[in-house]
Amino acid sequence: MGTRERIIDAAEQAIQEFGISGATTKRIAKQAACSEALLYKHFAGKEELFLAVVIERMPALGPALEELRAAVGRGDLRANLVTFTLAALGFYTRAQGIAGGLLGDPALITGFRALLAERGSGPHVPIQVLAGVLRDEQRAGRVDAALDADAAASMLMGACFHRANLARFVDLPGHGDEEWAAAVVGTLLRR
Amino acid sequence: MGTRERIIDAAEQAIQEFGISGATTKRIAKQAACSEALLYKHFAGKEELFLAVVIERMPALGPALEELRAAVGRGDLRANLVTFTLAALGFYTRAQGIAGGLLGDPALITGFRALLAERGSGPHVPIQVLAGVLRDEQRAGRVDAALDADAAASMLMGACFHRANLARFVDLPGHGDEEWAAAVVGTLLRR
Repeated sequence: MGTRERIIDAAEQAIQEFGISGATTKRIAKQAACSEALLYKHFAGKEELFLAVVIERMPALGPALEELRAAVGRGDLRANLVTFTLAALGFYTRAQGIAGGLLGDPALITGFRALLAERGSGPHVPIQVLAGVLRDEQRAGRVDAALDADAAASMLMGACFHRANLARFVDLPGHGDEEWAAAVVGTLLRR
Repeated sequence: MGTRERIIDAAEQAIQEFGISGATTKRIAKQAACSEALLYKHFAGKEELFLAVVIERMPALGPALEELRAAVGRGDLRANLVTFTLAALGFYTRAQGIAGGLLGDPALITGFRALLAERGSGPHVPIQVLAGVLRDEQRAGRVDAALDADAAASMLMGACFHRANLARFVDLPGHGDEEWAAAVVGTLLRR
């Protein structure tokens, strides 16, 4: 395993254990058995290192979105969307510990924002991709043509993101995740 | 202004300026011109102090929910829900800097979770209240009886919570907040 990989591993471990605030470059370098100087040779700053953790180590939403797109017009749309909703909930649950903690560090978030703008990337992209899938399903006649695909995508992803966050603070009453996902998808698909 | 109020003020300022991680009790006590010992006489710990900031200093969602409840069966439901959606978006935008940062601190979140459980409170309560309002509007015949009120409430609040978070990371493309809120409400109210 190369130095870069060792540093990313160490950063991921440090974030899970100590939170963003406790994941200092000193601690990460020590864990990766390298100097802080070497760490900074691989990553311009904490923002870039944390972005690498988010992008390279988190089971991404990409595959789940790709499956959904590949199934446009085919199979059981409701079941496909429920599977995707549960994947999104799982993704946000794991992402929360890493990306969520950024909010506690105003300086870090400023750097992170600049980095995302530079790359034309960001956490809003999955919403746009899901909206595209819903529009394709509308063209295939499987989703109500009157549904606002952008609003619907924003509500489905938002519900998952929020639920992942709420679960950190409280034991959620009511439905388990599977029933909840089915109810959310049913709300979008009703005609 | 009493000592307790001064400490809460100082904590709020410190969180906005330095983030949760930088808002140490030492810094807060200094700003409030009191000793750390006195701070701990008023608040059992950082969790309790931060909870006081969240509860006592944040413009709460309560009034917006109350207005919605008071208007059940009366007035323009669509307009009322759009106003509420914008209020929820504003609330989460302000809340994010305070409550969101907790995610970066595993120890603090554990304490916070215990405190919320003890009080039977939590960030999921507004979803339950909104679901109750939607059920009342269903009984009043103004919302489709086939809508799952819990799922709908979870999607509306989730969309607001997510959008507030996304705006911290990127300049959101597409609609401005008002058009976005109208599209979200329209999605729930369609029959």
